[in-house]
Amino acid sequence: MKLATIRLDGRHAAVRVDGDEAVEVGAADVGELLADPSWRDRPDGSRHPLAGVDYAPVVPRPSKIFCVGLNYRDHILEMGRELPTHPTLFAKFADALLGPADDLVLPSVSEQVDWEVELGVVIGAPLRRASAAQARDAIAGYTVVNDISMRDWQWRTAQWLAGKTFEASTPVGPWLVTPDEVDHAADLEVRCEVDGVVMQRDRTSELVASPADVAAYISQIVALRPGDLIATGTPGGVGAGRDPKVFLAPGQTVRTSVEGLGECVNHCVKDAG
Amino acid sequence: MKLATIRLDGRHAAVRVDGDEAVEVGAADVGELLADPSWRDRPDGSRHPLAGVDYAPVVPRPSKIFCVGLNYRDHILEMGRELPTHPTLFAKFADALLGPADDLVLPSVSEQVDWEVELGVVIGAPLRRASAAQARDAIAGYTVVNDISMRDWQWRTAQWLAGKTFEASTPVGPWLVTPDEVDHAADLEVRCEVDGVVMQRDRTSELVASPADVAAYISQIVALRPGDLIATGTPGGVGAGRDPKVFLAPGQTVRTSVEGLGECVNHCVKDAG
Repeated sequence: MKLATIRLDGRHAAVRVDGDEAVEVGAADVGELLADPSWRDRPDGSRHPLAGVDYAPVVPRPSKIFCVGLNYRDHILEMGRELPTHPTLFAKFADALLGPADDLVLPSVSEQVDWEVELGVVIGAPLRRASAAQARDAIAGYTVVNDISMRDWQWRTAQWLAGKTFEASTPVGPWLVTPDEVDHAADLEVRCEVDGVVMQRDRTSELVASPADVAAYISQIVALRPGDLIATGTPGGVGAGRDPKVFLAPGQTVRTSVEGLGECVNHCVKDAG
Repeated sequence: MKLATIRLDGRHAAVRVDGDEAVEVGAADVGELLADPSWRDRPDGSRHPLAGVDYAPVVPRPSKIFCVGLNYRDHILEMGRELPTHPTLFAKFADALLGPADDLVLPSVSEQVDWEVELGVVIGAPLRRASAAQARDAIAGYTVVNDISMRDWQWRTAQWLAGKTFEASTPVGPWLVTPDEVDHAADLEVRCEVDGVVMQRDRTSELVASPADVAAYISQIVALRPGDLIATGTPGGVGAGRDPKVFLAPGQTVRTSVEGLGECVNHCVKDAG
């Protein structure tokens, strides 16, 4: 099953993708939908042609967004680092999210807007002090996240938050794909292209901490709720890691995809102020 | 004016403190109240004796909680560090908040639960790309925050989030006090006592970045909304900075106060699992 949050006249609606149509399922967004334990069995509402749909972030208002740093085995080893014993966790707030086809406004205050394709995980049931097996069962589905990072702000201090939670900067979508359709994202290609040039390309089988591992770990700290979002980390190939460094510029298009989960395609535009 | 969020039978209510009474003002909590631009002029509702009130966190569900590290001038200099050029920002999520008189459950997974008294700032109007003067005008009021930190989790990786956002670990309250009553918190004593022993004691006049400075800085990154919370950093004297290090134990009481803003008094209890 594929679920999305779409924009209609002045409102959001959760939809199920049914062939070439989007079918409303009686919730304002996918987060609200997942808060209903019987979300899989909602009656069908209005239908919309999928082709014309305006996608919001799959979960527009998660109560928590946890991101993982340094989680691709091959990239960590090629950098000469040791594999981490615990996930490096940092946060975003919901205001940072952006639709999967929205323009990405490059903030005038940053000169270093960078890309990070990531496998996104959406939680579907409350989770607290869970095992990895329990956490796996609580995953509603997977999506694509582009963890756009303002490197100049990220590295101003020791804590990354400032560069990670810029307003409307993090594309998420287009859909949540349920685990049965992608074997729990065990081995999917993740890829980022800028103007058609492949910048990042790896496989989720290289993740040090799997989605279930990360969700179980977080649940030792704090409860995860339906609609909460985890971005599982990015592989090598970001702009700040290149020689010379490269960053996004107005007019460019950044395309982030995960095999079987679709893609976010965001056109970069100048900040009008 | 003093505002609080109190717990009644199965619900929360925003109240104004009026002498020895708490007067309901028709909102579920102070965050919801502040979202109404005319929040200062709400008609009075039911009254409750203040003495028996059960305080929730002043803002139970902020959309964002920003915390500042390394912000007391005297403490930074005594540590031999240079004053920072930008605030070090990190996050908590709303599930981390705790009432000002609630028991503090020491998580079984941490051996290093530490205290951090801080001046808290509650935002009262939307704020985006603001000057310090605009930010100052958008501050609804000030409160007390105890930024309880699980040091073993905080320092497992380079990012502090894991040790900072434990479930129900961060007392906030008891009230929001409006800026007119405390001269915008320009020079108030902040203090933390554990079982009556003074562990931290400093003055807000030592803050490197003032509340308005921090709010203006954050607003360059992302919009602040009514009810959002900023914890402005802690002075010296935390348990992890002592020789030998000391941490909280079941049976202890941690009392955090800011002059004119009241105090959080939290009894530490063992984690029942």
